[in-house]
Amino acid sequence: MIEVHPETTRLGWIGTGVMGRSMCAHLLRAGYPLAIYNRSPEKMESLIALGAVGCSSPKQVAIRSDVVFSMVGYPSDVEQTLLGSEGVLAHAKPGNIIVDMTTSSPKLAVQIAQEAVSKHVLALDAPVSGGDIGAREARLSIMVGGDKAAFDALEPIWKLLGKTYLYHGPAGSGQHTKIVNQILIGASMIGLCESMLYAQQSGLDPALVLQSVSMGAAGSWSLTNLTPRILRGDFEPGFYVDHLVKDLGIAIEEAQSLKLDLPGLSLAKKLYEYLQAMDRGSAGTQALILAIAERNGVVWGA
Amino acid sequence: MIEVHPETTRLGWIGTGVMGRSMCAHLLRAGYPLAIYNRSPEKMESLIALGAVGCSSPKQVAIRSDVVFSMVGYPSDVEQTLLGSEGVLAHAKPGNIIVDMTTSSPKLAVQIAQEAVSKHVLALDAPVSGGDIGAREARLSIMVGGDKAAFDALEPIWKLLGKTYLYHGPAGSGQHTKIVNQILIGASMIGLCESMLYAQQSGLDPALVLQSVSMGAAGSWSLTNLTPRILRGDFEPGFYVDHLVKDLGIAIEEAQSLKLDLPGLSLAKKLYEYLQAMDRGSAGTQALILAIAERNGVVWGA
Repeated sequence: MIEVHPETTRLGWIGTGVMGRSMCAHLLRAGYPLAIYNRSPEKMESLIALGAVGCSSPKQVAIRSDVVFSMVGYPSDVEQTLLGSEGVLAHAKPGNIIVDMTTSSPKLAVQIAQEAVSKHVLALDAPVSGGDIGAREARLSIMVGGDKAAFDALEPIWKLLGKTYLYHGPAGSGQHTKIVNQILIGASMIGLCESMLYAQQSGLDPALVLQSVSMGAAGSWSLTNLTPRILRGDFEPGFYVDHLVKDLGIAIEEAQSLKLDLPGLSLAKKLYEYLQAMDRGSAGTQALILAIAERNGVVWGA
Repeated sequence: MIEVHPETTRLGWIGTGVMGRSMCAHLLRAGYPLAIYNRSPEKMESLIALGAVGCSSPKQVAIRSDVVFSMVGYPSDVEQTLLGSEGVLAHAKPGNIIVDMTTSSPKLAVQIAQEAVSKHVLALDAPVSGGDIGAREARLSIMVGGDKAAFDALEPIWKLLGKTYLYHGPAGSGQHTKIVNQILIGASMIGLCESMLYAQQSGLDPALVLQSVSMGAAGSWSLTNLTPRILRGDFEPGFYVDHLVKDLGIAIEEAQSLKLDLPGLSLAKKLYEYLQAMDRGSAGTQALILAIAERNGVVWGA
């Protein structure tokens, strides 16, 4: 197994969006050589200024790296980036490690791991929670599945990116854990938005209500962090509606494979799809209040 | 308005169950004379030992008190205790204050306040959150509606019982705020139990998953405090299923009055009723995992 160290290990990163960019900056500051690729090249510029080498394809990143991370959009992007004929795995060398940090399908993670094994490459699925702020402050929770020795070897990297990093089991286990996280978030958002609409319609002052309910048994991260945005009508994305719908779709698909009917999860997806149909896919998840209100023929904030 | 002070103010308390008992103890320790009544007399004994005067009816409490608190079971109990011919209001004197701390219906709170006004009695609805531990440690959140001057006069009492006490508006506003709290709890419990069942069925270690998801955006009071009980199969009541079903029923009734359809709230009630049908009404709310599992033909913890 490789020993991960800035003087001997070349890193690669595919997908330098809001989160990827912050995470790459931590790796560069720690002194690692870093090759990067992003579909929209302008999103690589700030990292190139910090010393990253901009590449023109995932293949170019693979050729220059011992460990390649991917953090892209949808499972189809993961598949193309890692498994395509011009993708990372086709150009990785035996002993390399590939780490997919996209929130993606556990089944795809298993497939990647299987194809990686056949090329003597080690694969990990390592989605994160903590959002843009967590990425920037290196306080992510990193949920890892796949090759245990690779997980151990990458400890110096996990420490640079996250506050919590745990190994959850074989390939797909990181993605399964992230699904648990998203099931929780979906239900939490339903409660938050239904309760705040109830507060408004019953004539209460929602801001005052928040003070009464947020510190006790009804309290949650969402309530504390997202309700203030809802109350001031701020629907800017911390986390995109479109991405949550993707995640909830993966969750439902996997639940079905496990023969599980989870009605709260299904309801969350249905309500968020209603919000997408209101053309709010690129709003933040807290915009769900607008869907709950509209379904009831009510205007939020009125 | 009366000035509330141990030397001049006689307090009364109806309903000395688990929470009421802890709260009464705080009042006695602060030096207030206290007349109490409970339907099952044996639950008054420990308070009588602390100096309370045990009474044989709500009427007897009313006659001996300037301020009467009630914390009983269902709205029908509240109605009987406060509005019956042998109830508190029939025997209260002008200037007295009655405070219903039961989680009950906002409509009933309005009715009580109206009848109180006609007798020159001041009424407050003041349900709490924080459970038995919050009551014992005087860390409740007290959500108050009704007469504002009475709320202000009772500040010395709120300070003895709670950490947060806020005035939310006219009669019923305390109950409306508590409904907000219970809508949040219902949704939160659905997410918690669906996500933990998913964790188990996908082959993860739920205890390890909890570590990955509890500190971030999926985190909540329920997740941190109730999941450990679920994981060790402890379904003892902190808060009874039967009581939550009562609260969710009140919430749905009130939502309907406001012409609100809240599907997460309806789902929570439906799932908890399923759990009651499994004869788990006197379990703690975390037992919802048993209903989610059984509906899927799965055994929790197996």
